[in-house]
Amino acid sequence: MSKINFSSGLLLFSFLFLVNSSSFSQNTDSVFISKIYKSALTQGNSYEDLRQLCKDVGARLSGSAEADMAVEWGFQKLKSYNFDTVYKQEIKVPHWERGTKESAWLKLQDGKLLKLNILALGGSIGTNGLIKAELLIVNSLEELKKMPKSKVNGKIVLINQRMEDNVIHSFQAYGGCFPIRKSGAVEGARLGAVAVLIRSLSLGENDFPHTGTMQYNDSVGKIAAGAISTNDADKIALLTKNNAKSEIWLEMDCRFYEDKISYNVIGEMWGKNRNEIITFGGHLDSWDAGEGAHDDGAGIAHSIEALRLLKSQNYKPKHTLRCVLFMNEENGNRGGETYATWTKARNEIQIAALESDRGGFSPRGFDIESENAEMIHKFEVLFEQMIPFGLSVFAKGHSGVDVGPLGDEYENITMFGFVPDSQRYFDFHHSANDVFENVNKRELELGCAAIASWLYLIDKYI
Amino acid sequence: MSKINFSSGLLLFSFLFLVNSSSFSQNTDSVFISKIYKSALTQGNSYEDLRQLCKDVGARLSGSAEADMAVEWGFQKLKSYNFDTVYKQEIKVPHWERGTKESAWLKLQDGKLLKLNILALGGSIGTNGLIKAELLIVNSLEELKKMPKSKVNGKIVLINQRMEDNVIHSFQAYGGCFPIRKSGAVEGARLGAVAVLIRSLSLGENDFPHTGTMQYNDSVGKIAAGAISTNDADKIALLTKNNAKSEIWLEMDCRFYEDKISYNVIGEMWGKNRNEIITFGGHLDSWDAGEGAHDDGAGIAHSIEALRLLKSQNYKPKHTLRCVLFMNEENGNRGGETYATWTKARNEIQIAALESDRGGFSPRGFDIESENAEMIHKFEVLFEQMIPFGLSVFAKGHSGVDVGPLGDEYENITMFGFVPDSQRYFDFHHSANDVFENVNKRELELGCAAIASWLYLIDKYI
Repeated sequence: MSKINFSSGLLLFSFLFLVNSSSFSQNTDSVFISKIYKSALTQGNSYEDLRQLCKDVGARLSGSAEADMAVEWGFQKLKSYNFDTVYKQEIKVPHWERGTKESAWLKLQDGKLLKLNILALGGSIGTNGLIKAELLIVNSLEELKKMPKSKVNGKIVLINQRMEDNVIHSFQAYGGCFPIRKSGAVEGARLGAVAVLIRSLSLGENDFPHTGTMQYNDSVGKIAAGAISTNDADKIALLTKNNAKSEIWLEMDCRFYEDKISYNVIGEMWGKNRNEIITFGGHLDSWDAGEGAHDDGAGIAHSIEALRLLKSQNYKPKHTLRCVLFMNEENGNRGGETYATWTKARNEIQIAALESDRGGFSPRGFDIESENAEMIHKFEVLFEQMIPFGLSVFAKGHSGVDVGPLGDEYENITMFGFVPDSQRYFDFHHSANDVFENVNKRELELGCAAIASWLYLIDKYI
Repeated sequence: MSKINFSSGLLLFSFLFLVNSSSFSQNTDSVFISKIYKSALTQGNSYEDLRQLCKDVGARLSGSAEADMAVEWGFQKLKSYNFDTVYKQEIKVPHWERGTKESAWLKLQDGKLLKLNILALGGSIGTNGLIKAELLIVNSLEELKKMPKSKVNGKIVLINQRMEDNVIHSFQAYGGCFPIRKSGAVEGARLGAVAVLIRSLSLGENDFPHTGTMQYNDSVGKIAAGAISTNDADKIALLTKNNAKSEIWLEMDCRFYEDKISYNVIGEMWGKNRNEIITFGGHLDSWDAGEGAHDDGAGIAHSIEALRLLKSQNYKPKHTLRCVLFMNEENGNRGGETYATWTKARNEIQIAALESDRGGFSPRGFDIESENAEMIHKFEVLFEQMIPFGLSVFAKGHSGVDVGPLGDEYENITMFGFVPDSQRYFDFHHSANDVFENVNKRELELGCAAIASWLYLIDKYI
């Protein structure tokens, strides 16, 4: 495009504004929200905060030295912004390590070898040295479940199930494939497989394997489980088409160590009603590949910056705004569970919660997790105030894993999930590709502004 | 994020659906549009088409050999899809070349040199060898205009005006800065400057200079004009703060050659009403830095693929769907102007037009360019059909530069601009950074599906 006849940017959905707006002061709010956006985009700290977390700390799986560093970084960062209080909340976290040996090869019947791009799934046992077994390819978890034991026994199974790339909302496609990663090893072990590989949960074709949690079932025993890249899964399927007796050679020395002490890190701006809390945050831990930039460094940067932006505007909240940098979302959710139990035990009133854990992409809106029709309608109306700032999606949906346990403890809590554009998320998710360079500064900053503005509207009108 | 409780993706804007929908068959349309999306996302050609245009052809400024290649590529590509007719439309285009010498340095008073990242503005004259002149920095075009001639005379002026990064819709920020690039040389020459440099029209800080069109005014004479990177502009401002007598040394040998013959490339699916046309397209030419991937390879890939998708679903249009790959949008718009005059002279009826020239990012919706309130309302209602597919923006705004002249010829035409997310566009626009690797496959494919679906709805209901 060469010239300037840019869009007016005015939404034509004029009927959106036909609702009763007497209950809030649209103009004051609009002025305040504009200031939040301007501050985020011109004097924002989020991009530099994220750079530090990605580059100075790095990948930070629960129990790792880097996770300890992330706790220290988060604590010092919140301190540096002079919130009303900053503290750490002790939790016990699982401690699994990938180890130093992690290799896999395809060996074709004619002897040719193909080295595979592999990551052990989080929580997998190791192989105790190199194991070699005949390859069995299935195209779905359902296909594997229906196999006779005789066909699976003694083999390494590749579950080559594609994420459905025709699904528009990519998290829905992820949901459809999630059981493969979670239960592949159980279903394989049940039928006597010696190990399981899965096609990475990623849309499109590339060389990055994507890790993530998996589960065992003691009654069927444990076998090693890894993810290979989508390109490798396609290559294997192609090369073994007329090559029945291919093998997989596999070595992994990942294993669990004893649980470790770690922390949620918490910063607060106190409200007039100090015991009434609005909890918001992301998770400080990440998988051990890449830098956890989108998952969930972005959510951490969003949350810290949202609180800082509100403070920078001298906002005096009605409720206590509590920013929680949760530990251990990825493989245990001990941070989220501990936090919910702790706040309940202190007789705090949890009014609302918000989580950012879907990446640092261009903001689209918020999901609301509530069964209270009146409350949903109230926020629907409030959301119209965000439309001039480029948001457009307000949907009934999921909030987040970390804040999830609050919903079990507090019947009346209203919870929100921040919704950025989802198309690129699974290019990066849980892989070595999830690095700072793949986060766009403006997109991250707009997310901070959207979250800060939404917290303001929640606090003022709930 | 580790787990699967994904959003339902259901919009809560239920009042959106309270409008009268008796005039269209929502269910049939929804099924058809779903097929379009599925085909685009699972069997799409757009990403490979774009790869060819970027990598096998490359940057393709009007008059260049690469522009000729792009015409040939577009012609063969449209042919390969067996549309009802494919042809070229001859036009004369300007032929400006950057030449081989393009360098600039900052020379500080203490003798230190800093080499700058520079691109001549498109259409600039050369410097006829190395020129050296004292540097004058102004912070805006307005500041320059107010300067006394004595202060500017004999100097090289740097117009260090930032794009407003607090503007949410980035095209609006671009619009605000566009006059600097367009008129900087005129305003400089009027006051006796020997050359003008501008801060690149880009949001954020990086090392890429961004070129683009500029204008001369014969009455004040011509001086050379270039763009330097935003990082360099900041560096110069910083280094020269207490260093009044800095110089710029500059050499450029860009120049115009004689106009050349080139072509718009056109493919059609004939409608029952063959003489009633829906025109849509993007522009085949690009600037000569990078690969013209987002600007406007994406628009070309969108347009070709939209027609292919409709054909692949055996769609029989009511009106003739005419895909135009316009030549020379960037520095002349001869393609758009010639096309509008030509179709008018043939007594064709132009019903509607659509342009994609804002990049290959995640689709948000469409701008409508029309003063007909009834027609606007009609499309507002139709647009609701796109909401389940992730679109949410329907706004009164600009269509595009190429289809613009149709609006002058046809009073009653309804025109649309495709609106993708705008946040990353000016990271790439008119720079060496606008390459294929910076286009995401799914985002591009979703754009194709959105455009094909919208063309279907236009054709069926207009």
